[in-house]
Amino acid sequence: MSVVAARSACAERILEAIRDVVGAGPAALHEPQFAGNEWRYLKECLDSTYVSSAGKFVERFEAALVEMTGVRHAVAVVNGTAALHVALQLAGVQPGDEVLVPTMTFVATSNAIAYCGATPHFIDSEERTLGADPRALQEYLHGVTELREGRCVNRLSGGVIRAIVPMHAFGHPADLDGLLALARKFGLAVVEDAAESLGSFYHDRHTGSFGLLGTLSFNGNKTITTGGGGAILTNDAQLARAAKHLTTTAKLPHPWEFRHDRVAYNYRLPNLNAALGCAQLEQLPELLAAKRRLHERYAAAFAGVPGVRLMAEPTGCRSNYWLQTLILDPELVCERDAVLALTNEAGITTRPVWVLNHRLPAFRSSPRMPLPVAESLEGRLLNVPSSAQLAVQSQR
Amino acid sequence: MSVVAARSACAERILEAIRDVVGAGPAALHEPQFAGNEWRYLKECLDSTYVSSAGKFVERFEAALVEMTGVRHAVAVVNGTAALHVALQLAGVQPGDEVLVPTMTFVATSNAIAYCGATPHFIDSEERTLGADPRALQEYLHGVTELREGRCVNRLSGGVIRAIVPMHAFGHPADLDGLLALARKFGLAVVEDAAESLGSFYHDRHTGSFGLLGTLSFNGNKTITTGGGGAILTNDAQLARAAKHLTTTAKLPHPWEFRHDRVAYNYRLPNLNAALGCAQLEQLPELLAAKRRLHERYAAAFAGVPGVRLMAEPTGCRSNYWLQTLILDPELVCERDAVLALTNEAGITTRPVWVLNHRLPAFRSSPRMPLPVAESLEGRLLNVPSSAQLAVQSQR
Repeated sequence: MSVVAARSACAERILEAIRDVVGAGPAALHEPQFAGNEWRYLKECLDSTYVSSAGKFVERFEAALVEMTGVRHAVAVVNGTAALHVALQLAGVQPGDEVLVPTMTFVATSNAIAYCGATPHFIDSEERTLGADPRALQEYLHGVTELREGRCVNRLSGGVIRAIVPMHAFGHPADLDGLLALARKFGLAVVEDAAESLGSFYHDRHTGSFGLLGTLSFNGNKTITTGGGGAILTNDAQLARAAKHLTTTAKLPHPWEFRHDRVAYNYRLPNLNAALGCAQLEQLPELLAAKRRLHERYAAAFAGVPGVRLMAEPTGCRSNYWLQTLILDPELVCERDAVLALTNEAGITTRPVWVLNHRLPAFRSSPRMPLPVAESLEGRLLNVPSSAQLAVQSQR
Repeated sequence: MSVVAARSACAERILEAIRDVVGAGPAALHEPQFAGNEWRYLKECLDSTYVSSAGKFVERFEAALVEMTGVRHAVAVVNGTAALHVALQLAGVQPGDEVLVPTMTFVATSNAIAYCGATPHFIDSEERTLGADPRALQEYLHGVTELREGRCVNRLSGGVIRAIVPMHAFGHPADLDGLLALARKFGLAVVEDAAESLGSFYHDRHTGSFGLLGTLSFNGNKTITTGGGGAILTNDAQLARAAKHLTTTAKLPHPWEFRHDRVAYNYRLPNLNAALGCAQLEQLPELLAAKRRLHERYAAAFAGVPGVRLMAEPTGCRSNYWLQTLILDPELVCERDAVLALTNEAGITTRPVWVLNHRLPAFRSSPRMPLPVAESLEGRLLNVPSSAQLAVQSQR
C-alpha cells in the first residue's frame, strides 16, 4: 500500500508542476499558432489560382529557409519523410545497404531507409543530448566493421554501412562534432534528420547544415507548420538541383514535352502549403523566444520536484525547445505510466518517447549495437505540453 | 515549298478553330476555378488551428467523395501517385511482379509500380477510348502467359503478372467491361487509375469504382484541386481500413503510445488541403457542365477542319472532358510539331501526349506487347485549352 501511495504522490507532484506552468485548463502537447500573415498569404495564393505545383510561394519559402538556416539551398517537399527518402537516395544509399540511425527516433527515419531498400542499423543515444552517442558508436564500429575499398562493411552481415542519420531529438542538437569525425573515419555519408530542430543551433550553425544533406519537417505538431511539408537542405548546388529534380518526377525542362529521365517522385510542396509556411517562418523568432520562456517556467516549476530532470539544451548549443522533455531518475522508472495516465486523464497531454524502432515488427531483425541508454530512456522520458502560446497564457 | 505551305496552313487552321472557342487572348491548358466556399473553408480551417493531420475537413472530403462517386470508401491522400502506390500494394503487387499498364499514361502510373519493386509491362491503347485495348491484350496474353496455380506467369520473363491498371485518359473511360472480363480470365487484380476521370461514368457507374481499388488525383491541373492531393477508392471495407492504416504510418491506435506495426507511409492529406477540396467538390456539377459546353463549342469549331478529330466520350460513357483532345489523321502526323509551336507561340497552351512510358530510360527494358496504336497516337494527339471558365468566357 505504501508503494502505491508513493507512486501516486510522484505523479501528483508532476501534474501539479505542469499545472503551475500551463494553468488549470486542458493543454495539448503542441498546437500551431497563426498570428501573422497566414490569412493574407493564403488568400493571395487562392486569388492567384496558383495553389499547386506552380507559384511564387514555394520559391519564397525556400529562400526564407535559406536565410533562416544559413544553408545554401533548400528544396521544399511534401513532408519530412519524403525529404529523408530523397536525401538518403542522394547520399548514395542503395538497396542492400545499411544506414546507422538512433533507435530512439520517430518511425519515419527508419521507414525512409526502408523505402531505399536499405536496412536501418540501430545505434544508441546519450542522455546528455538525447542524440546518437559517438563514443559508444565508435567502439562498436571498430568491433564489427572493416574498411574495404573505402567502404565501411558490416562484418557480420556483409552489408555496406553507407550513411549515418543523426536525429536532433525534440530539438536538442546531437553531438555533431563527434558524429562528423566518426563519419569521416568510417567513410559514412551524413544525412541530418533535423525534422524537430528548426531554429536549433550547434556551435552557432543551424542543425541540418552539417551533413551532406539535412531535412526539416513542417507537420502540424512542429514549431512551424505548412499543414504538411518538409524540406531538403544542402550546401551543394548539384545535390540541390538533383533534389529538386527527384522530387518533381524527374521531368526534363521543355515547353510542352513530358519526358522524365528516371524513376522519381511526386514530392513537391503545393504552393498553398508554402504560402502558410512563408507566414509561419516570419514568426519563427517570436515562437522560439516564447518556447524558451516556457522552458524557463518549466525549469522553475520542476526545480523542487525530486527525481525529475527537465531536459535543457546541451552545452554549446541553442535548442528550439520543440517539445519540453522530462527525464525521470532510474529509480522512478515504474512511475512513467502512472504519470502518463494521471496527466492525460486530467486533460494535460503528455506522451512517452516513441517505441524504440528496434522493437517494431518491421525492424525486429535489423542489426543493432547494444542499446542500454535508449532502452533506459524509453522507460523514463516524457514530453509535456510545449506550445509557444502556453508561455503567454501561463503568465496570466 | 508547297509541302511547307500546306503544313503551315493546317496549323493556322487549327489555331483559328481554337481561337473561335477560347477567344483572342492567351489561354492556359487547364486552370482551377475558385468560385465557391474555398476561402470560407480555408479560413475556418486556419481559425480551428487544425491544418494538418487532424481536423474535420479530411473526413468531410472523404464523405463527399463517397457521395460523389458512389463507391463505399474513400481515403484521402497527399497526391495521386501516393494513392496508386498504396493501392498497388493493397492489390498484392510484390517485388519482382509485373503489372500491366498502358504505355500511354502519365509517368506516375509506371513510377508507382516501380515503387513497389515491380515492373510495368506495357500494353497498347485503342483509338476509340484512348485506354487499354482488351482485345489486343487478350490475344497477346494468350501467347506469352500461362496460368500456374492460379497465377498469370509471363513465360518469357518468369515473372508473375499480378495486376492491370486501366487508366482513363483525359477523362474518357477505358473499356471496363472488356478489361474486367480479361482480368477475371487471367487472374489479375484491377487497380483503376482514375486520376483524370473524376466525374466520368462508365455505364452509369463512376470510374474508379470497378476495380478492387481505384485512385483519384486533385493536382492543380485536374478538374478539381486540393493544391496537391489524391484519394484511394474501394468498395471493400477491409481494404479501406488497410489503406488508411498504410497511409498514416501504420500507427496502432493508443492515447499516447507511438507503435507502428509495419513499414508504412506518411501519405495523409493535410486538413488544409482537404478544406479546399470540400469547397471544390461542391462545384463539381457546375464545372462538369461547363466543360461539356466547352466540348460542344470545340466540336462546332472543328466540324469544318479536315483531318482533325475532336475526342468525344465513348459510347455508353459520360466523360468529364478533363482535357479536350484533338487527334490528327495519320496523314497529318508530320503537322503535330508545327501545331504545337504555332499555338504555344500564340499564347494558346497546347501539348502532345506524354512521351510513351516504354521510351523513357527507366522503362526501356520493361516488357511490352506490340504498341502500334499508342505509337501512332503519340504523333497525332494534342490537348488544347480546357479550363471550365473558358466555356463562359467564350460566350462573350
